[in-house]
Amino acid sequence: MAPEPPGPRDPREQPSHFMWGGRFRSQPAASFDALNRSLPVDYRLWPYDIRASKAWVRALAKAGILSSDEENRLIGGLDRVAARLAEGAGEGAADEDVHTLVERLLYEEVGELAGKLHTGRSRNDQVATDLRLWALDAAAAIDQELKLLGLALLKRAREGIDWLLPGYTHGQRAQPVRWGFVLAAHAWPLVRDRKRLAECARRIAELPLGSGALAGSGIEVDRVLLKETLGFKSISPNALDATGNRDFVAELLFVVALATTHVSRLAGELMTYSTAEFGFIRLADEFSTGSSLMPQKRNPDVLELARAKAARTLGDLVGLLSALKGLPAGYSKDLQEDKAFLFDAVDTLLVTLPAVRGAVETMVPVPERMSAALDRAMLATDLADELVRRGVPFREAHRLVGLLVREAEERGVDLVAVPQDRAAAIHPLMPQILGRLGSFEDSVERRATAGGSSRAAVEAQLESLQHELAAPSPPLP
Amino acid sequence: MAPEPPGPRDPREQPSHFMWGGRFRSQPAASFDALNRSLPVDYRLWPYDIRASKAWVRALAKAGILSSDEENRLIGGLDRVAARLAEGAGEGAADEDVHTLVERLLYEEVGELAGKLHTGRSRNDQVATDLRLWALDAAAAIDQELKLLGLALLKRAREGIDWLLPGYTHGQRAQPVRWGFVLAAHAWPLVRDRKRLAECARRIAELPLGSGALAGSGIEVDRVLLKETLGFKSISPNALDATGNRDFVAELLFVVALATTHVSRLAGELMTYSTAEFGFIRLADEFSTGSSLMPQKRNPDVLELARAKAARTLGDLVGLLSALKGLPAGYSKDLQEDKAFLFDAVDTLLVTLPAVRGAVETMVPVPERMSAALDRAMLATDLADELVRRGVPFREAHRLVGLLVREAEERGVDLVAVPQDRAAAIHPLMPQILGRLGSFEDSVERRATAGGSSRAAVEAQLESLQHELAAPSPPLP
Amino acid sequence: MAPEPPGPRDPREQPSHFMWGGRFRSQPAASFDALNRSLPVDYRLWPYDIRASKAWVRALAKAGILSSDEENRLIGGLDRVAARLAEGAGEGAADEDVHTLVERLLYEEVGELAGKLHTGRSRNDQVATDLRLWALDAAAAIDQELKLLGLALLKRAREGIDWLLPGYTHGQRAQPVRWGFVLAAHAWPLVRDRKRLAECARRIAELPLGSGALAGSGIEVDRVLLKETLGFKSISPNALDATGNRDFVAELLFVVALATTHVSRLAGELMTYSTAEFGFIRLADEFSTGSSLMPQKRNPDVLELARAKAARTLGDLVGLLSALKGLPAGYSKDLQEDKAFLFDAVDTLLVTLPAVRGAVETMVPVPERMSAALDRAMLATDLADELVRRGVPFREAHRLVGLLVREAEERGVDLVAVPQDRAAAIHPLMPQILGRLGSFEDSVERRATAGGSSRAAVEAQLESLQHELAAPSPPLP
Amino acid sequence: MAPEPPGPRDPREQPSHFMWGGRFRSQPAASFDALNRSLPVDYRLWPYDIRASKAWVRALAKAGILSSDEENRLIGGLDRVAARLAEGAGEGAADEDVHTLVERLLYEEVGELAGKLHTGRSRNDQVATDLRLWALDAAAAIDQELKLLGLALLKRAREGIDWLLPGYTHGQRAQPVRWGFVLAAHAWPLVRDRKRLAECARRIAELPLGSGALAGSGIEVDRVLLKETLGFKSISPNALDATGNRDFVAELLFVVALATTHVSRLAGELMTYSTAEFGFIRLADEFSTGSSLMPQKRNPDVLELARAKAARTLGDLVGLLSALKGLPAGYSKDLQEDKAFLFDAVDTLLVTLPAVRGAVETMVPVPERMSAALDRAMLATDLADELVRRGVPFREAHRLVGLLVREAEERGVDLVAVPQDRAAAIHPLMPQILGRLGSFEDSVERRATAGGSSRAAVEAQLESLQHELAAPSPPLP
Repeated sequence: MAPEPPGPRDPREQPSHFMWGGRFRSQPAASFDALNRSLPVDYRLWPYDIRASKAWVRALAKAGILSSDEENRLIGGLDRVAARLAEGAGEGAADEDVHTLVERLLYEEVGELAGKLHTGRSRNDQVATDLRLWALDAAAAIDQELKLLGLALLKRAREGIDWLLPGYTHGQRAQPVRWGFVLAAHAWPLVRDRKRLAECARRIAELPLGSGALAGSGIEVDRVLLKETLGFKSISPNALDATGNRDFVAELLFVVALATTHVSRLAGELMTYSTAEFGFIRLADEFSTGSSLMPQKRNPDVLELARAKAARTLGDLVGLLSALKGLPAGYSKDLQEDKAFLFDAVDTLLVTLPAVRGAVETMVPVPERMSAALDRAMLATDLADELVRRGVPFREAHRLVGLLVREAEERGVDLVAVPQDRAAAIHPLMPQILGRLGSFEDSVERRATAGGSSRAAVEAQLESLQHELAAPSPPLP
Repeated sequence: MAPEPPGPRDPREQPSHFMWGGRFRSQPAASFDALNRSLPVDYRLWPYDIRASKAWVRALAKAGILSSDEENRLIGGLDRVAARLAEGAGEGAADEDVHTLVERLLYEEVGELAGKLHTGRSRNDQVATDLRLWALDAAAAIDQELKLLGLALLKRAREGIDWLLPGYTHGQRAQPVRWGFVLAAHAWPLVRDRKRLAECARRIAELPLGSGALAGSGIEVDRVLLKETLGFKSISPNALDATGNRDFVAELLFVVALATTHVSRLAGELMTYSTAEFGFIRLADEFSTGSSLMPQKRNPDVLELARAKAARTLGDLVGLLSALKGLPAGYSKDLQEDKAFLFDAVDTLLVTLPAVRGAVETMVPVPERMSAALDRAMLATDLADELVRRGVPFREAHRLVGLLVREAEERGVDLVAVPQDRAAAIHPLMPQILGRLGSFEDSVERRATAGGSSRAAVEAQLESLQHELAAPSPPLP
Repeated sequence: MAPEPPGPRDPREQPSHFMWGGRFRSQPAASFDALNRSLPVDYRLWPYDIRASKAWVRALAKAGILSSDEENRLIGGLDRVAARLAEGAGEGAADEDVHTLVERLLYEEVGELAGKLHTGRSRNDQVATDLRLWALDAAAAIDQELKLLGLALLKRAREGIDWLLPGYTHGQRAQPVRWGFVLAAHAWPLVRDRKRLAECARRIAELPLGSGALAGSGIEVDRVLLKETLGFKSISPNALDATGNRDFVAELLFVVALATTHVSRLAGELMTYSTAEFGFIRLADEFSTGSSLMPQKRNPDVLELARAKAARTLGDLVGLLSALKGLPAGYSKDLQEDKAFLFDAVDTLLVTLPAVRGAVETMVPVPERMSAALDRAMLATDLADELVRRGVPFREAHRLVGLLVREAEERGVDLVAVPQDRAAAIHPLMPQILGRLGSFEDSVERRATAGGSSRAAVEAQLESLQHELAAPSPPLP
Repeated sequence: MAPEPPGPRDPREQPSHFMWGGRFRSQPAASFDALNRSLPVDYRLWPYDIRASKAWVRALAKAGILSSDEENRLIGGLDRVAARLAEGAGEGAADEDVHTLVERLLYEEVGELAGKLHTGRSRNDQVATDLRLWALDAAAAIDQELKLLGLALLKRAREGIDWLLPGYTHGQRAQPVRWGFVLAAHAWPLVRDRKRLAECARRIAELPLGSGALAGSGIEVDRVLLKETLGFKSISPNALDATGNRDFVAELLFVVALATTHVSRLAGELMTYSTAEFGFIRLADEFSTGSSLMPQKRNPDVLELARAKAARTLGDLVGLLSALKGLPAGYSKDLQEDKAFLFDAVDTLLVTLPAVRGAVETMVPVPERMSAALDRAMLATDLADELVRRGVPFREAHRLVGLLVREAEERGVDLVAVPQDRAAAIHPLMPQILGRLGSFEDSVERRATAGGSSRAAVEAQLESLQHELAAPSPPLP
């Protein structure tokens, strides 16, 4: 066999696989290419690929691999490639992946010199770097949206601090609480999400570039410089680990899945309150949908979709973790799937948060329906507490009030309407205590421990919530 | 307030929400629309939406809602809409979903008459019908690809019936087997997948159309006629169940996830065999990739991706099942997510199967590496069986051969090279039996039970496999 | 080194690992044993292990490996082992797994002859056989419980055929329906579950025994005889596939996960109806719980737990499918995890179904609350249908009624209370149609298509449901 | 009806439901009890329930609810209950849950006074407190085991710093690396796991006690005192959120699932190396198993099980997240499932880590098999880098070396054995460069960037790894 003649070759002959085609006699089969090509998924990484490539050019120059002139021409070329990509030059391209696309366009800009860019670098450390850069931006965007939803809940909570409604456990009326207290209960999880996100971001910000394919770069590049240039916080300590490490994807997926779960809980609760039977809130027209068949419908699609999205981000998390199971250290192609999971989950959360925020901002609370749902049986704990104050052990007090509740229920009357002699038969002090049971407001005010539903306690927690939310997003990275 | 004037209104004023906008004062907010619009996902349902709509027109005409002329104009209009969509008329459309898109285009074709199409129908029964029609086609396509992969394995199995290699359990050499036997072990799961698929398809083929939004259509349409026209097998028995039932999606997702898992097992095993250390097969150039950094690499990306795809389809299954949890009967918007999961999983399997088939069809087995991997310790079971034939209880024979193996291992020699006196010390018959141990071929031939690795048994199973695979795909539905 | 003296050895010296200890110098480390021992999980398989072992004894005898006397002594020994295990002989045993336990006890019963039992058999085909036998019984038990829950729903549905309540979509009132229709919507999924279960059971009933460790048994046992003795339907066609095949576990797990999801949907809907705000049902005392703190609480824990159990069985399914990903054909120890997943899921469903059935059987419907929840806006579709009958295209009729709904909503009045001139301004026929709108009963009766909510349609579907449910459980296998 | 007489009642009459039975006429049905009773799962929380109860007694005394004498009697009683439970008093108890068990035993110790313990407390804040205390101990135990596995890997890495073997990507030989470098790549993920765990622990350490059932305690207890007494770091800010918040369970489950995934990757890689074909390591006898049928087998069950456990902990994570989806704020009984998931996952990891550590500590590396697996094609990158140093752009150099590799492969010879004229035809400098290619050691030393495989770089990273691992476990909390 005659070897192909040496010398430069036009990479466009092998548009998608010129990066590695030299050792093969034939091009990839179409069926394989359909499975293998990742450009449709990883295309969105191009700004990060450019950024990381520019940093790499600087590092190669410092390492003496590129002359100053070559350095400048490559930087200029990469900038022009970026400009072209921003104008859509990559749309519909047939390249294998975003790295190949960028390198091919760079050939068009600077000719053969483009072939020097990939010196000492592998797609293994390159894609890990690109994806970490993307993930840092994604984390910042999510953080901002979590903050905005939290602030929207806080605003509505402040407005509703004096509206009482039943608090529910097990889906059943339990004790009276403040509307502001209920809304705040859905804001605190977002505060936790932001903390998890910030910690996750610190781990994302570890530079893999300079790890080569698995064993470190064959060129002595200055990884500290690379780190500083790209804004990372630390340097990966083991090249084999660095190229096969997808912890940062798993962790971000988890944070996203849990945050979406929090939104699903808020959405589920608001759905209940927006039914005709509860009627505590009414969604605004611009966050409601109708039915194609039933002209009267006002549907809370926004809340249902938000609820379902928690399942979707969970599926993405499962996909990634299951894909990682049992893989050896270092790069395996299985890792390519990471992006499909991460992009889908992040996109999902980022389209869900603003919509739910809008629904929260515009929903119309109906305080008179809230107060109408309060019933005197919800004061049963207060009754028992009062017996406790007269010396009855709580467990016994609970039982006695339980008997009173049963009596009232079987008579179909309010607690306070149980005949005095029946109440007294349960406990001699009962009629007197019943007479002084007080209002729902009194009941709420009795829960004055930190985190409780008294007005002062709620005001304090809203203050503290404001403080947590107003804090600037953690500097990322 | 002055009500809007009655009379026909141009639906194009409200391109995306004219189906239900009448009762609202304002259009959906942009953030909500971004979450709510499903057209980018459900667009591919349009051929099924047209088919189902044409059947519905026939049914409305039979029910006296449409005149014969109206019927013909609507059918003609729908055909023209289909033609336009086939030419790309729907790309980039801003409609809420595929049903709205089709109805809007129909207005363009037949004017106000289009407004009669949705009589007695809801998007709830409509989308369930569309998706079932799509799923039946998907099942047929998957069935065909499973069959083709099975046949490819069968062909390679036939070719390799006489090549012996180690069979492995726990990843360790266990007993000699035939290459054809190993490949066939990966074909049988596909036969089972096809059976599951056929049974699933029977359940997909249940007509929901005519269920209205939840309580049955207000128009007395002939559901038997609808069923026949659309090629379904049965009619849904409860309208509320029919509109909220996504069992068919869950079941198809499961069949897909399990089939992808089977492919991942084949891929994982072939990966092992394609390492330099095993060397039993070599992937063809057109199913190999190289490295961007290391010029010598020949990577089995096709197998790694196939392995990872099992994680992806599992994620899709999780998403759907988790989305369904706790929903009431009937339609909830959460169900809209079903399509994202189903389309992703089906697309994934349909891009994976042909690529893996190609890899199987073109891989180069290396029988000499296979036979070189056989070692005499793999005949230990035969040795024990021989002691059994001389009357030693198996458990004791096993222990004795274990001692011999240990002796050989500690001496670093082959089983048959253990000195005679040491062998005799373990059991007086041992030297004699060792002397007659026979070849690997003898060992394989001793496993002649149905399903075993003897030549006749393998030939019989390949015959039977051929029969199963050659069977026409089950008529769907 | 001096080999250990040949000759029989007391297996009790190595209680847990005498099956394979011969070739090793040392016993398993404690930390490894803690991970490896499966007896606490697989102990419950012992009746199946005995059954399969007895069949194996018969087959060995027929193959000439055992004399008739040995056969009888082994059968007798196994029966005595079974009797001892039934009395608790295995509790707290230190054996590696159930197979080792049974074999050890058999030594105690019949001495050295016990060592002949494992001839030609491997734990790989043995455990697959045991687990399939167990799974068939599990499938039968689940089928029975699904049937009973279906019948309970049917009974309550019949009783409630004449009670009208709002049917809901998107959690919002949609159209009036019958209580019996709603309950039946939750029974039909169980009918489908039973069909899936029956089909799954057919695939479970494939005999793996006789496959040896991976390559077929070295003894020519009669696998057809084994199949008949054990009640299987077919014989596994490939020994390598048979020993590594866990499709039957995956499939049963899926059927269980989906059935639990169905129960979660029923539970979720009943929870909503049991709130004070809806009040359509009241759980019986014996299916309610109270609160440790709030004396008045009546909590639907049974329904909440049923809802959560769908998440649990989903987790089990995920565990199994993820464990299978990428494994080679044949036995890998990873497969040992299958039992933990399957047992947990089956146990979960079998404890959930009777509890939910009890809740359904004893709940108290409150028809007056149901009818009180009907409002006239739910007749909007009827209004539009009526306009259609007067020639207005449906889409336009929908819009007109939408305007009427908006008018009523903004006035805070019932649809029929919109002033005649305002109604007429929307459409001249509107006042007249409003006047003849009819009752909720009329509306329900208008949905008379198959599967609809009219009385006749519901009666027909309950008849058909009765027929489906009363059918004997499919003969398994 | 006559109410039951007031006055103390023997709680043993209603052993399992005396906490809330007062208001009901009948006891829970058996089928419901079977679903509802959580004692078999939550029993292990008893030490934490006692601890939290003692802190609660102090707080009630400070709040004036208990006299000093009552306080002392209750503390003494709880200590005696703890002593009895430590001796097995709770085994097989029929109580509803661990809280009921403890309270019932307390009645036995101190009589009616026990009824005062539950004043102002709910099982909702109580169980959240108990489980957080348990989780903190679990996190500490996991941290310790992660550290020990890391140290074991480090020790083996140090020992193997001079053994070269192929580094793999895509499962294929890539570049030569050091054995110590490979082992270290599996230790770094454990360092990250410990960091995640420490951060997670900080969030676990937030006190829910004092939140009551949902709205705060009706008794003004000093929550700061409670926090200090129990060793928490902060106080939950919203009672409704605090009682329904299971973020800490989700987060710990995630950390566990990811850590188990890391272990599965280590296990998967060691499995490959322990095959006869690779032969780089040999598991010690005490971490190997045999086969019941094949006397020669040495199976790496420990590694297979470790691999599969990643699927199991993933299933647990899925279960919890799916259970949380869509729940309202506050306590729902669905949350009871959290413990089954968390306990299973933590137990799984804690049984896996010591076994894998043992396997790592005792495995026998086979350096001669490692070095035998190195082949000259693995120096292809060095060859290309050398061309780069002579001015050839890397992409072109890569292609040229690819041609050389192809030539060698097609001739079936080593790279350096390609005839000079063929090499020169590819590039004139090729023969010269081939002549100076150097050893595998040279190649490894060329990768001297931080994290690379040169000796100095590996030494530096092992130093740093030692530093990370030796750090004391983060103080929890």
